[in-house]
Amino acid sequence: MAQKPSIPKGTRDFSPEEMAKRNFIFDTIIKEFQLYGYQQIETPAIENLSTLLGKYGDEGDKLLFKILNSGDYLSGLSDQVLKQKDSSTILKHISEKGLRFDLTVPFARYVVQHRNDITFPFKRYQIQPVWRADRPQKGRYREFFQCDVDVVGSNSLLSEAELVQIADKIFTALGVDVEIKLNNRKILAGLSELIGEKEKIVDITVAIDKLDKISMDEVIGELQSKGISAAAIDKLQPILKLSGTFEEKINQLEQLLASSETGRTGLEEIKTIFDYLSVLPVKSPVELDITLARGLDYYTGAIIEVKSKDVAIGSVCGGGRYDDLTGIFGLPGVSGVGISFGADRIYDVMEEKNLFPETITATTQLLFVNFGPAEEKYCLPVINQLRDKGINAELFPDSVKMKKQLTYANRKGIPYVAIVGEEEMKAGRITLKNMKTGEQKRVSASELAVLIK
Amino acid sequence: MAQKPSIPKGTRDFSPEEMAKRNFIFDTIIKEFQLYGYQQIETPAIENLSTLLGKYGDEGDKLLFKILNSGDYLSGLSDQVLKQKDSSTILKHISEKGLRFDLTVPFARYVVQHRNDITFPFKRYQIQPVWRADRPQKGRYREFFQCDVDVVGSNSLLSEAELVQIADKIFTALGVDVEIKLNNRKILAGLSELIGEKEKIVDITVAIDKLDKISMDEVIGELQSKGISAAAIDKLQPILKLSGTFEEKINQLEQLLASSETGRTGLEEIKTIFDYLSVLPVKSPVELDITLARGLDYYTGAIIEVKSKDVAIGSVCGGGRYDDLTGIFGLPGVSGVGISFGADRIYDVMEEKNLFPETITATTQLLFVNFGPAEEKYCLPVINQLRDKGINAELFPDSVKMKKQLTYANRKGIPYVAIVGEEEMKAGRITLKNMKTGEQKRVSASELAVLIK
Repeated sequence: MAQKPSIPKGTRDFSPEEMAKRNFIFDTIIKEFQLYGYQQIETPAIENLSTLLGKYGDEGDKLLFKILNSGDYLSGLSDQVLKQKDSSTILKHISEKGLRFDLTVPFARYVVQHRNDITFPFKRYQIQPVWRADRPQKGRYREFFQCDVDVVGSNSLLSEAELVQIADKIFTALGVDVEIKLNNRKILAGLSELIGEKEKIVDITVAIDKLDKISMDEVIGELQSKGISAAAIDKLQPILKLSGTFEEKINQLEQLLASSETGRTGLEEIKTIFDYLSVLPVKSPVELDITLARGLDYYTGAIIEVKSKDVAIGSVCGGGRYDDLTGIFGLPGVSGVGISFGADRIYDVMEEKNLFPETITATTQLLFVNFGPAEEKYCLPVINQLRDKGINAELFPDSVKMKKQLTYANRKGIPYVAIVGEEEMKAGRITLKNMKTGEQKRVSASELAVLIK
Repeated sequence: MAQKPSIPKGTRDFSPEEMAKRNFIFDTIIKEFQLYGYQQIETPAIENLSTLLGKYGDEGDKLLFKILNSGDYLSGLSDQVLKQKDSSTILKHISEKGLRFDLTVPFARYVVQHRNDITFPFKRYQIQPVWRADRPQKGRYREFFQCDVDVVGSNSLLSEAELVQIADKIFTALGVDVEIKLNNRKILAGLSELIGEKEKIVDITVAIDKLDKISMDEVIGELQSKGISAAAIDKLQPILKLSGTFEEKINQLEQLLASSETGRTGLEEIKTIFDYLSVLPVKSPVELDITLARGLDYYTGAIIEVKSKDVAIGSVCGGGRYDDLTGIFGLPGVSGVGISFGADRIYDVMEEKNLFPETITATTQLLFVNFGPAEEKYCLPVINQLRDKGINAELFPDSVKMKKQLTYANRKGIPYVAIVGEEEMKAGRITLKNMKTGEQKRVSASELAVLIK
């Protein structure tokens, strides 16, 4: 036999069982998105490199999958350039397109390109695969799904509150215990001002964002190495240890940040969001975490993160407000807020905690055993009726040994099997076998539908 | 402003309205697949070129999108090879992966790779985009969806009959009037034997397959140009004009093909399929069309084609039986049968005939007008209750002019708007406006849910 075929490193096939589980997650998410008025869009897998390059930093540019131009792709290349044998110079001549790297940049491109057709505020969701030429490792793939929900064209903080509620409802529906953390980039900016290191906000927040992974001493070490003054660090430390209820934290921060206009604005925003949440109830704990930063360069207001309480897997959902999503494509002043669900991590948490409902992989509810042509003719009209009633039913296509047919039912997780032999045909009955209990009973065709439903 | 961003030729963005319509088609198709016990799989967009190359002919190899190796992709290339500047020689050194070209080859690869985990007969469906570097033109895209349903690991002709019924049910549910044509490659082989041109079966069937597009004289011209003898053409012509009911055609063919074992087997198979259809009722006309060939090299038994009766757009669905799907990957003897739905063509037919239900694009059922913070606090608990009842509802996020908010509802196709001002709050009522009729009435929060449902 030829060598067994394989797929590229970091990619996956999804089996029927895996698809059923993935669909369960996405269906739950989509239902919630739609309850809040979000609409789906899709963008092509292939984008122009001019759209993608320079949007994800140098490292991102390297991780983009580039597509070779079609046909004689070397024809436009001078011998001069070819001779230099420089991958990055030659790239410009032989590749114009790349694979989608995330959903944010294509969404920004979509908004700018279709701005005259879009109804703002534009509430959209998008669930599509993205590709990154990253080193594959456990839980990190080169092709994986992103699942984003955003509102653009409104400054209302109601959107932030609704997104928190949506995340809460989705994880509640999936049975995943989570905690939700909120912060605001303006609070972080205020703190940097307060300690006299306004210019170093990025270094400061990158360091303190690690407080959930490394110790305070290590964070201080990192701050020192970035040239933050000892006085500033001394001022910062007690703030990072801020504790108490939401109100207590806010009260302390209001005093601390009284002199920073930006800081005060951030606090007002957080308070407004919490105020909305008083009429948009959430089941998961929501707390203010001033060490939360996420992709700080990007966010300008609220920062949202959702973490599994049971599985140490990092964030399962996160996002925030960005005031200039579409500026990169020449359309400034469009504010938006959004969150992204980590489908793979949610899948892994649900597997680990055994949270998938047992029944979701059983797409067929009833298998008819095949005993031959006469029995087929007897069974098919019954099966037709069942299907008309919305019951997923199949007749085993070949009249092979019953054991083989029952094994098929078992392996596919089919809960019921109908057995129709000569005797049943004579009596006008059907023997229904419950594959879990092994129980059998003789029923009429019309009773069958009722029992299965 | 910077240049307006764009997407590559032959690719598309899908707007919320287009997504709603596409989802309507796919949901209808998937529901039917599941009623018959088919399960979903997905394969990665990126496959190894060793999996893809040589499977679609020379032309196909050219149309494959190839992905440039990551990093310094030129490093493994000798100066010698580089200097030759030959695109196809260099390709082997700089690209190892390509984009999925269809769903059939990845499915064959999947079956071979996972054969120990698969429950046979394996009834699977797969709906994913594929990519071809074809010349884009009206109705032909470089990224488009295929939608395949197949059974592998069974020779039963019940599968063929069920696939015909599935196609019929799907087009009936979509409201698309179709006719279904059946043929069998063994009948075509028998005819080639009969006219003494057994070796030229491919040339003959490629020519007669065109009879629905060009005249008999032109088909004869093509046959002559392929070196088919005048005597053979004389013998063939009356057979191609075969008419009458299914039984009449079969009777004539049984006499004609009496001497060909292959031909007789083909006729028996067709009769068995029609026999199954007597207990698997279909609404669309099903006829035997011996000029139907489709991808003949590929099919070994039944050939199935579904055509729109109202729109001259070619086939909207088609497929057949193949006895050696997985042979290309070293696993011979696995027979399968499948059909593929042309999602783009179905979409176009439905647009042209105005077949999409009016309501499918309205994802939100009720918009609450936003008059400010007090009204928001009054409305949000009501909206929560509606969402708990499964009603898609949104509160406009900003308290801007009412006209702007109503325009938003209109453009999003939202059928109802709830207006809650000071008066309503005092009275504990909600003014419900029907956006289609303009009719308004005052109702309680609990009446609201009932009226919207």
